[in-house]
Order: sequence, then structure tokens, then C-alpha cells
Amino acid sequence: MRGAVLYGPRDVRFEEREEPKIIEPTDAIVRLSASCICGSDLWPYRGVQRASDPVPMGHEYCGIVEEVGRAVTSVKRGQFVIGSFFASDNTCPHCRAGYQTSCQHRQLVGGAQAPLLRVPLADGTLVATRDVPPADLIPSLLAASDVLGTGWFAADAANVGTGSTVAVVGDGAVGLLAVLSAKQLGAQRIIAMSRHETRQKLALEFGATDIVTERADEGVARIKELTQGVGADAVLECVGTAESMKQAIGAARPGGYVSYVGVPHGVQLEGQDLFFRHVHLHGGPAPVRRYLPRLIELIEGRKIEPGKVFDLTLPLEKVAEGYRAMDERRAIKTLLRV
Amino acid sequence: MRGAVLYGPRDVRFEEREEPKIIEPTDAIVRLSASCICGSDLWPYRGVQRASDPVPMGHEYCGIVEEVGRAVTSVKRGQFVIGSFFASDNTCPHCRAGYQTSCQHRQLVGGAQAPLLRVPLADGTLVATRDVPPADLIPSLLAASDVLGTGWFAADAANVGTGSTVAVVGDGAVGLLAVLSAKQLGAQRIIAMSRHETRQKLALEFGATDIVTERADEGVARIKELTQGVGADAVLECVGTAESMKQAIGAARPGGYVSYVGVPHGVQLEGQDLFFRHVHLHGGPAPVRRYLPRLIELIEGRKIEPGKVFDLTLPLEKVAEGYRAMDERRAIKTLLRV
Repeated sequence: MRGAVLYGPRDVRFEEREEPKIIEPTDAIVRLSASCICGSDLWPYRGVQRASDPVPMGHEYCGIVEEVGRAVTSVKRGQFVIGSFFASDNTCPHCRAGYQTSCQHRQLVGGAQAPLLRVPLADGTLVATRDVPPADLIPSLLAASDVLGTGWFAADAANVGTGSTVAVVGDGAVGLLAVLSAKQLGAQRIIAMSRHETRQKLALEFGATDIVTERADEGVARIKELTQGVGADAVLECVGTAESMKQAIGAARPGGYVSYVGVPHGVQLEGQDLFFRHVHLHGGPAPVRRYLPRLIELIEGRKIEPGKVFDLTLPLEKVAEGYRAMDERRAIKTLLRV
Repeated sequence: MRGAVLYGPRDVRFEEREEPKIIEPTDAIVRLSASCICGSDLWPYRGVQRASDPVPMGHEYCGIVEEVGRAVTSVKRGQFVIGSFFASDNTCPHCRAGYQTSCQHRQLVGGAQAPLLRVPLADGTLVATRDVPPADLIPSLLAASDVLGTGWFAADAANVGTGSTVAVVGDGAVGLLAVLSAKQLGAQRIIAMSRHETRQKLALEFGATDIVTERADEGVARIKELTQGVGADAVLECVGTAESMKQAIGAARPGGYVSYVGVPHGVQLEGQDLFFRHVHLHGGPAPVRRYLPRLIELIEGRKIEPGKVFDLTLPLEKVAEGYRAMDERRAIKTLLRV
């Protein structure tokens, strides 16, 4: 089969790779219904994280189970399944506490920008839909695999509930789906921080009530202004830079909640500053598995359409162009037809 | 009147000070029933925080209202009252959210190591007991003014509830009362980190179920060992140093809660480390006012005896010796008879 492999900064190649096989009896092989590129793939693509060897790319996936190992009992050949970027046993104490991305036996899933994928710990990782879904639901179900689950975690980790005033920092796919999630969780006011027209439009469609185009200190000042000087109840940081984190912490009210769901790059927090700001802070790799059953239900019921974040669709062999489009912010998120 | 004034590192003098007077119509003057020295007073005492001018010391207080300004309506002359180190209006949005120490009109209360104290924003700040309490309750009511309220916030901010496994970092008065608070809030297991015999004894008396004497990485390893490799549900950081914070974050389970209630000194948190540890973080200057009604009720009902943290009692004029005893860790906390 052919799949995407990263060789170095901005060097993604579409090339022959060995087909994945069952290695452990707990594995499953999934034939992907579609693949896509994640904002977090841009970190290594841009050379911020360097890898010494060529790396098969992609960690978002949904599709039809092709084969299962002999120990797998909860999914079977022919079922449509969705999983997350960390495989988890879903039985250890961390999984039972809802933190499957900290599973004691977690394994990174990789190489999903390809037609076939090996998923370890299939019983704990994969969630099957009731039926094989119609084609038009595939983009939304694929979004549930990572960006929707991550946006949902951002809202949940920031304690968003009925009546909350929420600010979202970041207008990538995760930020936009954090807006959608906040709306679903009952937020009354959702302030999206974005200066890109197409993204602003999607944010409004997903439930944003206000758009703030200012950044850094001016962005914070604007949020304070919109909240009568108080600050937001919840700020969802969906970028992962020092600037975005500073902005998020500054925009929260004392006693408010800041969540952060993008891997922080170069972020240092000053203890005394955090202390006197009185914020709650929670984040990490989103335990998407915790939310998958609910997200699938919302998508199958056509209550939400997170697949709208895909504004570019390419055949898998054009994967390199997909990366370029996202790197240059010409596309929010690229769907790859397999 | 005579009171304690800090002139520089380890230079506390007991000297003549002007008697406080009503300045604002919202002020009250309180005649203190007792005074005391706080662990946080040791930061400036040790020269970690430098002040340019001599500073009247002390911010913990309870006593009889001597006089009130003309705008004060909720307390009156002759009542026994308790307040906290930040005066607050208790009506602004931050106060209503329970963060009175971030009150939009907050004012630091200072100079309580003296017979008389001016308390601003008396209506929002002071809580009166039903009757003037018997003398044996004074130490516990004085503890409620800061160290108990702070320990209680540590437990509350770390989400301690029925069945929680809790670790407490720090065996000062706040750490010990965090143990007591965790017990009151229903914790099942409370691991106190201490290597001082008298403090261990008090921790056990307050409800600790385990004592860990190891520190730093060994301390973390020991907590992991005591929790079957999982980590504590809640870790209450009651010191404020980089080491204690690191230890606290390391000892929490993924998805666990770390609270921090001592002003951080030299604490820098690495974003990526926090991210992958999946902890919740919350702290700040304890909003003691939020908890005072409940704490007073527990003390008046003799359900708790936080006053046990006072293991040295001196007349006010010996205040300098009180500081020395705490600085050298000969005393947990010094009560000053006024």
C-alpha cells in the first residue's frame, strides 16, 4: 500500500509502505474510510519537533474492521469503528478515571494517512457505530477521532456548562470545534478569537456569539471589555504557544477555568502570576475515548456536523499538497480520500 | 499602643505605634482577643521579600468590635468577629463567585500583631459569632482567620470529597490544617509528608492515615507505592517552593488535582510537563471569607480544634522570640497574648 511518510521539515512523501499486520492478539486492522491531516502534524512538518528517521504520518481514523487478533472480543470484521490517537486498554485505573490518554498501557497510533491501519488494544480503543454510516457522515465521524474530541475536552476541562461565558483562543479545527462543544454543553456566550474571515464564519455557524480579532494584551482587554471587566468563566486554549497561553490565562476571571489541549511548545508558567490570578488550569492530551460514545450519538443523530471543518478534500496521493495548504493557512483541515 | 514592626531581615521590633482610627465610613476597629505569627510572615522576616520601610506585621485576627464607621451595618460594637487578610466588599462579581481575595476593592489588612486593628470594608470582611466565645475557643477561632481557611481552601481547590486519597505537602500550620480539612471533607486516606515528630503526631491527630518522611523524587515514589502506582487523587501543596510544587505535581494521578496555597517563590512550571501529567491545578490566596461561616460553626460546635497548631504561647511583647522559634522550626505556630 502507499501512505504518507515525513522525511524532514516540509518533506512529506507518498510512498510504498508495508501493509500493517496483526502483531499482538489484541490488535485490529482497520480499512480507513477516509484520512486527514491534523494541526499537530504541522509541528514535526515545520521542524519544531525533529525526528531522526522517516515517520509514517497520521493519527486520526475511522473505517471498517478488516481483521482482529484472537484476543479481541468487542469489535469484529465488517464493523465501522472510530478510535483515538492513543490506544488504551480502557480498564486500568487511569482509563477508569476517564484519562485514557494516560492509560498505563497506552500506545501511540500512527501511520493513518494510508489505506490500512493497525490499532493496538482494539477492545479498549475502538468504538463501533450501530450500522455502517452513510458516506456523508464520514467527515464528521473522522473529526470525532481527534479534533472534535479534543475541542470537547477543552470545553469539559474548562468546566463549561449551562450559562457559561466562554472564550476560545485559536481558530484551527480544534478551536472551532471547541466552540461547537461549548455550545453543546450549554454555554450562553462564546467569544471566538480569530482574524480569518472563513474561520470566523464557521465559528459563528458553530455557535460563537462574539468574534474578537485583537490578540495578546489587546485581545485580553477586549474580552474584559465584553465581560464588564470581569473576564470569562472559561477560556479554552487551543494553540499551544506561550502567547496563546498567556492570552488565555489573562482573559479568565478570578476563579475561572483555563483549559489547554494543544501540546505546549515553549510554554513556561510563572507560579506567582498563576497564584494571584486565581485560575483553574487543566489540560493535556484529550482523552477522546471518554467522549466517543456521546460524540458518535450526536453525529449519527445529525445534531452536530463537525465535519464542516474539512474545507479541502484531496485524494490521498496529494497528501503533500494537503500539508502545504494547512501550513500556509489556506485550509483549516484537509480530508484525504483513500 | 505597642505592636510588632519589621525593620529588615530578622529584625522585628516591639514598639510604640499610633492607635488605628476609623478612616473610611466602612471601617471597623477591632480589639484583638489574641494575635499570632503566620508562616507567610517568615518570607519578609527572612529577607526573601524586601520592604523599603518598616512594616507593621500581622494579618490574622479575631476580637471584639470597638468602633464602626457610620456606613457599617452588619457588625456592631461589642460583637466578636473574625476576618481575613484581604478585606473584601463581598458584593462584587469576584466575591459573589467565592473569590473574595480577588475582590475588585480588596485591601490588605496589616498590623494585627498589636492590641487594636483597623479593618476596612467591615461589612464584607467581618463575620460575627453568635455570642462572645469562651476563652478556650479563641485559639481555634484565630486559626480560622487564615491558616484553617487556607488549609480548607487547599482541600476544596483540590476537589477533596468522600473517599478521596489525599497527599499533603508541607507540615506547617497550613499543611496540618489541610489534613484536618481533608478529613472533614470526607477523605478516606490522608498521607501527610513530614519528617518532624511533633508535626507528624499532630497530623495523625487531625486525621492523617499515613506519614511519608521522604522528600523530592523519593517522596513521589513513596506516594506512588502507597497508591498502587496510581498517585493521589488530590495533592495539597502548602509550602510554595519549586521543590514542593514539583513534588506535589509528581504525586498526583493523571486527572488528579493539585492545589497550592502558599505564595509561590521561584516556581516556574513547564507547560509540556503539566500537559502530559494531566493534572488539574488551582490555587491562590485563600478566599477564607467564603468558608468562615462554616468554619466558625464547626469550631463553636467543638467539632474541630484547629487551635492545636499553636504550640507556643507568648505575651505580645515577646513577638521577636515568636518569630525566632518559628524560623528555627522550634514552634509550629506562635500565639501572642495581647
